[in-house]
Amino acid sequence: MSEVERPPPRLPWDPPDNFKKRVPDGDNRERLVCDDCQFVLYQNPKIVAGSVVTWEDKILLARRAIEPRKGYWTLPAGYMEIGETTEQAAQREAVEEACATIEIDRLLAVYSIARIGQVQIMYRARLASPDIACGPESAEVGLFRWDEIPWENLAFPTVVWALAHFHQTRGVSDFATFSNPSGDLARMWPPRKPAGV
Amino acid sequence: MSEVERPPPRLPWDPPDNFKKRVPDGDNRERLVCDDCQFVLYQNPKIVAGSVVTWEDKILLARRAIEPRKGYWTLPAGYMEIGETTEQAAQREAVEEACATIEIDRLLAVYSIARIGQVQIMYRARLASPDIACGPESAEVGLFRWDEIPWENLAFPTVVWALAHFHQTRGVSDFATFSNPSGDLARMWPPRKPAGV
Repeated sequence: MSEVERPPPRLPWDPPDNFKKRVPDGDNRERLVCDDCQFVLYQNPKIVAGSVVTWEDKILLARRAIEPRKGYWTLPAGYMEIGETTEQAAQREAVEEACATIEIDRLLAVYSIARIGQVQIMYRARLASPDIACGPESAEVGLFRWDEIPWENLAFPTVVWALAHFHQTRGVSDFATFSNPSGDLARMWPPRKPAGV
Repeated sequence: MSEVERPPPRLPWDPPDNFKKRVPDGDNRERLVCDDCQFVLYQNPKIVAGSVVTWEDKILLARRAIEPRKGYWTLPAGYMEIGETTEQAAQREAVEEACATIEIDRLLAVYSIARIGQVQIMYRARLASPDIACGPESAEVGLFRWDEIPWENLAFPTVVWALAHFHQTRGVSDFATFSNPSGDLARMWPPRKPAGV
């Protein structure tokens, strides 16, 4: 088979062709059902847990060593696993991506990215010590002052959102959890420094 | 086959026997992988979105018409679907369970039930009108004054948590989002009225 004829690569979590869409008994939505064994694949939104982590006046960022957005800077965050709390997931991701031990301060934001079925739960946290290093998914880690943040090289719009929302809480111990922004901050693709921060 | 010999019923979302546990390439945890087609079933925590909804000084509860905890009272809440925000999921559940149109005020709580891989995202909300009625999953719906809440007939510990946390925010417009409680409130099984509320 030539390169042109080759089908797109199947990722291991892509449902194979034997899954067909139909409405299972007792449900009111189409789900993917295996033709062979009738297993119903319920696909629900996935949770990403992460944090804006500071050491003194600096913010921890990691440069991605993996796709998507390889080479771009992000906050320590990733898919939550069964058996942990959202706080534990955020702490684990900081260890995995930046070898960082963090102390969670409080819930910063809950963002819904409806199009891709993702909910991001972001905490405000502090580094327990300035010892950070690359984990397997990071090419580089660093502590950035606010005026050093590489805005145009951030990985995702939600990284911009979390940084901008975090900035509003500086020196404030009591604040309401943020949700999806509106206005200019809602449109951060490609990433850039938002107005007024 | 006699009743005694019958295996436990397989639910449609239970992975069938052809799924075996192994660590997929590029991963660091055991996942369920289909022996036949190599599909990797990533099982992540699921999100329940719901709300504590008021009309004047009364709170909306629905009596469950389905298992688990059929016959017990709960807050309108349920599994979030792909394609919606957490706020939209909470609003949809209020419609589905109590034919209730709600206006979300703000995020009340984020609870992690690690053992069962569930994160509950609960809002404080108001009824747009006192018109409520049973949806297909409810046997009865009602508006309860605080001293009328059927504490011992509540469905789940998290219903007690959300009610107790909501009660702390009465008359307060600005409050921090709650997370899993500690102390006596953490141990609400079987459900009962917590001390001090």
